[in-house]
Amino acid sequence: MTSEGVDRVSRRDLIQSAEIITIGTEMLLGDLVDTNTAWMSSRLAALGVGIYRHTTVGDNRERVIGALREAASRSDLVLTTGGLGPTSDDLTNECLAILAGRKMGERSEAREHVDEMFARFGRKPTPSNYKQALFPEGAELIPNPRGTAMGALLDVEGTLFATFPGVPVEMRGMFEETLEPLVRERTEGSIVSRTLHFTGIGESALAEQVQEFLDATDPTVAPLAGQGKVRLRITTRGDDPEDARKKIEPVADEILSRIGKYYFGEDEETLESAVGRLLEERGETLSLAESCTGGLLAKRLTDRAGSSAYFSESVISYSNDAKHRLLGVPEKLLAEYGAVSEEVARAMAEGVRGVSGADYGLSITGVAGPDGGTEEKPVGLVWLGLADAGGTYSRKLDLTAWEASREAIRERSANLAFDFLRRHLDTEVPSGG
Amino acid sequence: MTSEGVDRVSRRDLIQSAEIITIGTEMLLGDLVDTNTAWMSSRLAALGVGIYRHTTVGDNRERVIGALREAASRSDLVLTTGGLGPTSDDLTNECLAILAGRKMGERSEAREHVDEMFARFGRKPTPSNYKQALFPEGAELIPNPRGTAMGALLDVEGTLFATFPGVPVEMRGMFEETLEPLVRERTEGSIVSRTLHFTGIGESALAEQVQEFLDATDPTVAPLAGQGKVRLRITTRGDDPEDARKKIEPVADEILSRIGKYYFGEDEETLESAVGRLLEERGETLSLAESCTGGLLAKRLTDRAGSSAYFSESVISYSNDAKHRLLGVPEKLLAEYGAVSEEVARAMAEGVRGVSGADYGLSITGVAGPDGGTEEKPVGLVWLGLADAGGTYSRKLDLTAWEASREAIRERSANLAFDFLRRHLDTEVPSGG
Repeated sequence: MTSEGVDRVSRRDLIQSAEIITIGTEMLLGDLVDTNTAWMSSRLAALGVGIYRHTTVGDNRERVIGALREAASRSDLVLTTGGLGPTSDDLTNECLAILAGRKMGERSEAREHVDEMFARFGRKPTPSNYKQALFPEGAELIPNPRGTAMGALLDVEGTLFATFPGVPVEMRGMFEETLEPLVRERTEGSIVSRTLHFTGIGESALAEQVQEFLDATDPTVAPLAGQGKVRLRITTRGDDPEDARKKIEPVADEILSRIGKYYFGEDEETLESAVGRLLEERGETLSLAESCTGGLLAKRLTDRAGSSAYFSESVISYSNDAKHRLLGVPEKLLAEYGAVSEEVARAMAEGVRGVSGADYGLSITGVAGPDGGTEEKPVGLVWLGLADAGGTYSRKLDLTAWEASREAIRERSANLAFDFLRRHLDTEVPSGG
Repeated sequence: MTSEGVDRVSRRDLIQSAEIITIGTEMLLGDLVDTNTAWMSSRLAALGVGIYRHTTVGDNRERVIGALREAASRSDLVLTTGGLGPTSDDLTNECLAILAGRKMGERSEAREHVDEMFARFGRKPTPSNYKQALFPEGAELIPNPRGTAMGALLDVEGTLFATFPGVPVEMRGMFEETLEPLVRERTEGSIVSRTLHFTGIGESALAEQVQEFLDATDPTVAPLAGQGKVRLRITTRGDDPEDARKKIEPVADEILSRIGKYYFGEDEETLESAVGRLLEERGETLSLAESCTGGLLAKRLTDRAGSSAYFSESVISYSNDAKHRLLGVPEKLLAEYGAVSEEVARAMAEGVRGVSGADYGLSITGVAGPDGGTEEKPVGLVWLGLADAGGTYSRKLDLTAWEASREAIRERSANLAFDFLRRHLDTEVPSGG
């Protein structure tokens, strides 16, 4: 990665604090949701680096330089995303050069990289594309095997700057392949977090049961709630990961002894991955019959690689005709009780289990809105059905008091549907049926 | 909304600039992706308010006050999200009081609101919940009909502060019902944007064809690319919305005369909503047969309210058995060509059209990874099938050169599948078949 005339980035000093700067007027205008910053933050936190601040500024030379300068005054490491493209409003590396008092110069390895990437996709670069070969003099380059924009690493008076493109898949690869090993060499000790996931209990009711841990400073325990779930993140620092984990364990054990009945998994676990894991362990299979969620349950279940081991199929029966034809829901039931009813939810679950031969059939039918609600069946009324060899179960979800959007009703009812099945697999007795 | 002893927020001065501050250690740690800031930004931009900066800080008194003070020195309006909860690390209103040099005091209307919200969900507040009734003296309250946390509006030396909870559905309601009307009174003229969406052309190839508009300052034209799509956002300011729209029109017309063949819609339009709109206009229906996307196509199609008018069902045939049983794909085809093949994609499309009676059957089968790729059928190989009364068409997607995640391959192939159907509906001849 080094070449003649390029400074090696100093690796002597410890990196204890970091900031992330997102550069792009489109972010300030709200055209895009920034997912890069959360991803980078979570990676840095795991490396034991404290994060002071996130900042977003537009494509404006003065404001970008201002943000870089402020961050340098506070933090050991400053990461930027965005502003590395070929157009005239892509200013990040130029602003970094101005801050560092360096000139911009073309780097042959970056020019060759642009040529190679274009060749791979069978296209020809235009003159403007070679703007991506210009870097502050003395910068180390961050290779980008997934796109044309390489990044720059440059030490400016003791603060290490690293510039990344805004395209998530490119940024993530560059972070993992180049930045992470470098930061790892310059941190001491480890910060370890363990996240416990709960469902079926509200945030404040949960907080009251574990209040002294929330008030403690080491390990810290932070609650986080959303869409019917509450997480507790337990964090501490140790000489090494093993040491930190040992400090977390008794806290986690005590929390679980108090509120374990609401617990469903740790760290990256989601309700759907918990369901997937349980099915995998039991060697059982699931099929789905979705109406109001329109594919969301299946989409979430198949987000997990390897889901084909326990998931064979889903029938999204949006129309009554499809409910009858594909799932065998009797027309009489549909006429008598309507599509959003306990009877139809049960028949959908039994139907999909029957046609698929899966061990479990899970169904959902409801009114997601914003239209289509009636006094009897308002927006937010959802029925779940679950069929297995032992019988058929059902559960009513009432999301009406909570004046939510179509999107939120679909998300929350999907969570509750996965939880319904998860509790059943965990051999708890379902609430209905 | 006013009550004794409460200052009316000054409505005399114009609001020209704003900043958004997100408060919460969980955001700095990357536990959550912040979608509130983009939403607020896009609403403020539409009101003609320029946005200078987004900042995120942790639940730390000194750093929150620091961020509030810096923002006040730059902007007329400062919005915060987060830190309004009942726990001890919820500090936002307290920090605002310190900045303003005011005391915190309990507000009876906020206390009653907490009681009412708990009663609605059949629960009892705990003493800590009444922390949400404490506000800086003199603040106006922002009603929150969807949650317990009301917000505060307070003018501090000419900068208007408004505090919002972090729960998106609550924040959005409060913004629309209270803040938006207030900001509208204090802005002059209008900023209007029109966003044109394109697909089938790369960002730099597109930029070259409309370069002089990208370089122009009024209207401004900003490109934005992602997952096989490119957007151009045309923005200008006018005395009123009509005046601004008139300035945008000739620019949009000229752009469309050059690259109209890649255009698919405006503003909120997505590829799936364009498909939905076209089907609706033609009075036709669609059914889906998904394999590798596992429900994502159906989920996106049904994100749009009213989709039941043109979408009846989707079969997510994740297993070969389901492809055969539900869609009638011959076992011989599956054995001879494999599930990811042109032949099976075509049979799936024909199959789902046949069982559903829909006008169009659209199918997708591919290798989303990260496992399951072979030399012959690598991760990123995807086949699309499309059947209608006139015949069956197919298209191969090669997403292999682009080393993407499972999630990105599913998203991009879903985009390309919707585009395949959209072009067909637009009476362009599909590329395959």
